Amino acid sequence: MTPEEFRAAGHRLIDWIADYRGSIEQRPVRAQVEPGEIRRRFASSPPQEPLGADQMLHELEQKIVPGITQVQHPMHYGWFPSNASLASTLGDIASSGLGTLGISWESCPAATELEEVVCDWMRQLTGLSEKWQGCIQDTASTACLTALLIARERVSEYSANRGGLQEEDKPLIVYTTEEAHSSVIKAALLAGFGRQNLRLVGMNPVTRAMSPTALAAQIEQDFTDGKLPCAIVASAGSTGITAFDPVSEMAEIAAEHACWLHVDAAMAGSAMLLPECRHLWEGVEHADSISWNPHKWMGTILDCSLFYVRDAEHLVRVMSTNPSYLRSSVDDEVRQYRDWGIPLGRRFRALKLWYHLGIDGIDAICTRLRRDLNNARWFAEQVEAAEHWRVLAPVNLQTVCIRHEPPGLEGDALDRHTLSWLSDLNRSGAAFMSPSKLDDRWMVRVSIGGEATERTHLEKLWQLLQSSAAEIAGQ
Amino acid sequence: MTPEEFRAAGHRLIDWIADYRGSIEQRPVRAQVEPGEIRRRFASSPPQEPLGADQMLHELEQKIVPGITQVQHPMHYGWFPSNASLASTLGDIASSGLGTLGISWESCPAATELEEVVCDWMRQLTGLSEKWQGCIQDTASTACLTALLIARERVSEYSANRGGLQEEDKPLIVYTTEEAHSSVIKAALLAGFGRQNLRLVGMNPVTRAMSPTALAAQIEQDFTDGKLPCAIVASAGSTGITAFDPVSEMAEIAAEHACWLHVDAAMAGSAMLLPECRHLWEGVEHADSISWNPHKWMGTILDCSLFYVRDAEHLVRVMSTNPSYLRSSVDDEVRQYRDWGIPLGRRFRALKLWYHLGIDGIDAICTRLRRDLNNARWFAEQVEAAEHWRVLAPVNLQTVCIRHEPPGLEGDALDRHTLSWLSDLNRSGAAFMSPSKLDDRWMVRVSIGGEATERTHLEKLWQLLQSSAAEIAGQ
Repeated sequence: MTPEEFRAAGHRLIDWIADYRGSIEQRPVRAQVEPGEIRRRFASSPPQEPLGADQMLHELEQKIVPGITQVQHPMHYGWFPSNASLASTLGDIASSGLGTLGISWESCPAATELEEVVCDWMRQLTGLSEKWQGCIQDTASTACLTALLIARERVSEYSANRGGLQEEDKPLIVYTTEEAHSSVIKAALLAGFGRQNLRLVGMNPVTRAMSPTALAAQIEQDFTDGKLPCAIVASAGSTGITAFDPVSEMAEIAAEHACWLHVDAAMAGSAMLLPECRHLWEGVEHADSISWNPHKWMGTILDCSLFYVRDAEHLVRVMSTNPSYLRSSVDDEVRQYRDWGIPLGRRFRALKLWYHLGIDGIDAICTRLRRDLNNARWFAEQVEAAEHWRVLAPVNLQTVCIRHEPPGLEGDALDRHTLSWLSDLNRSGAAFMSPSKLDDRWMVRVSIGGEATERTHLEKLWQLLQSSAAEIAGQ
Repeated sequence: MTPEEFRAAGHRLIDWIADYRGSIEQRPVRAQVEPGEIRRRFASSPPQEPLGADQMLHELEQKIVPGITQVQHPMHYGWFPSNASLASTLGDIASSGLGTLGISWESCPAATELEEVVCDWMRQLTGLSEKWQGCIQDTASTACLTALLIARERVSEYSANRGGLQEEDKPLIVYTTEEAHSSVIKAALLAGFGRQNLRLVGMNPVTRAMSPTALAAQIEQDFTDGKLPCAIVASAGSTGITAFDPVSEMAEIAAEHACWLHVDAAMAGSAMLLPECRHLWEGVEHADSISWNPHKWMGTILDCSLFYVRDAEHLVRVMSTNPSYLRSSVDDEVRQYRDWGIPLGRRFRALKLWYHLGIDGIDAICTRLRRDLNNARWFAEQVEAAEHWRVLAPVNLQTVCIRHEPPGLEGDALDRHTLSWLSDLNRSGAAFMSPSKLDDRWMVRVSIGGEATERTHLEKLWQLLQSSAAEIAGQ
């Protein structure tokens, strides 16, 4: 494809994207397809003849788009907001257009240095001190794995350089709660700690925040049993009910026992753009690492996860490689982001964050986040005021956990009712929410915060919820 | 930013990208900036006021582009080719435009199913049997780490579910060679094996291919010493000299000792699109996992690394999570790609591979790869025929390892000469190559295969090389 062919096809694609984004509200939220339906639209053998850009765009519209669950739809309340602001989309397109290679400072000085700049801007915007240095990773899952790897190496006095984790005398222990994101458990297992050395510490039954007393007691017990406490992962805005662990008290315990403290603020990091929310992660300055995802509520298009550490030298010591074919004469003067994470090759992700801040501006972003907090409070009030509806957990941010509990329904029957009305509503395409379990019973998470979601959409949602639940209850 | 604002700014960006890609040859190859120079062009505090899309584009041109080493330049011969074909760039732009969320089948059925389709197309195009199932990861580094993690779990009988690697009786051992990519060593250390349990097996001194005899002997020795051989990583097209380990013989040894065999074909995978090259990885069918990067020579824009396994069930068992908030009613019928790698959230990467195959077509891609192989042979002939120039390693693919060896220069003096003429040439911006060490002496890798690189560019390069080296030698 020549630059002129690209120009022509690119213009048509931009028009198509603008039309698509402008008309998302007319599409069903949840993809209306069955398993295998999209796959069967494509030949099982690779195409022998080129199709041309127009035909590809036609197939994109006809074959692909029906298979997309529209997370940019204003009636999408599933999982967490996954906003792909058009400003950041433009930055992502610029990144594609440049076609850079990020494997060393020398391979693209601008990619390294703009990443330094925007990570520091984001540090300032979330009220973190100058002690923190950051990078962009793909997801909070990868950032959490990175955190546990460097925790493992700090506490084991760099066992990777000797016999590895497998020759350690004392088992290293990781602490979190059952409210933690699934990626925390996955990271602990992948990092080699083993399920038996993962402690799910007790929580406050209402807030589902880790109990500092239970944490301290568990650590004492592990020391007594000849284990070596290694890392604590705090959830700041858990996926289930947006629970906040008490970072300040956990940091004190971590410091006392030389444990690593990682704060997984994948969701709540966006809230920290608002000074009035920062009390929710009070004590974060005393953590060892933090990750959060601008690609969620803030709306910098996926993938964009910020990862900050206080001791970058330690991070680099664990993650670095320095083969001869990547060396240059300026290596001592520059940052090599390949040594801040797992992959060597990196995209120019800083551009999308830069574009997002540059075009939308931080004030507009913060105004939108405050709108969503207000909307969540309003929505929770409606639910609380309605007969047979319950708000099941504190509304710490923008997610409201609810259940319709008609008289006489409990236990498994209530579970069936919950999944049934939710499934009907999701299948209708009119709105989408995710179910989740709380105390082993199904509930519905209404995760507010889509960029396009206004109060009118929530009014509509509340009507839909009531009629969907009433219909099922009446059957 | 509204869709209409996006439309207007998007058109200007597309024009800019088309102009930029069309005029890359007029820019210096290596970024002509000093460390910190790009960073200092940006304010140290985040912008308070939005700048607007036009101003951002202006800053992109003025502040960012001078900090880019132009890997799409026809005179770029550094590292490995990192082609970002415009067809795949268009697919990457489509992915940004759609703004999808890939965390489960349900969150975007099309992203999952198109990835299944294109991974299977690529399997067929590289001559692999139906035993292999694939996914797209960001890089071969991450794929190699994934391979070593699942190898660790297979050989340790899923220790992650018990006490983890740290409670294994016998140390698990990983085998590769010093010619392996730095990411292999990094992966072994991150996976917890420890440097002492990493064996750099002896090689053929000329081809730098792993010696099967040395491998077998080392494994025997390790068993004798009470260790547990676990994983073997074969390089197919190493970064230093494009060396090929003997996969067939290594697979036999791996099978005999129940070791996992991972084939790191990050570079050479592209060559396997050409049937005449497949003898180079003969035996690959008997490996356990393979990774290769369409984002290198083939030219599907970064990041796009294919990862194939024969036992997908085992992969998923190790990498899976199944929290309640990600469950849906169709989970038993669909593939969940989050369980095929480390990150939960995934971009819609299949689009760029689909666009690349759909617009450029496989025939044109293969024709270009053959052009590059011919060009490499031609270039090596010129070097070999010239006085005081040497080709230092077999030209297996498209990389030619060379050195200018004027009479009387050897040892450190020769190293200084090599680095000196290369540095001068790279700094000039006229061409770019990476140095690398071979037998502890510096050499120059001429890695041919840029999409825009024609024979005329190589003729120009050969002139530049000779004059640069002669100038330094004459000083």
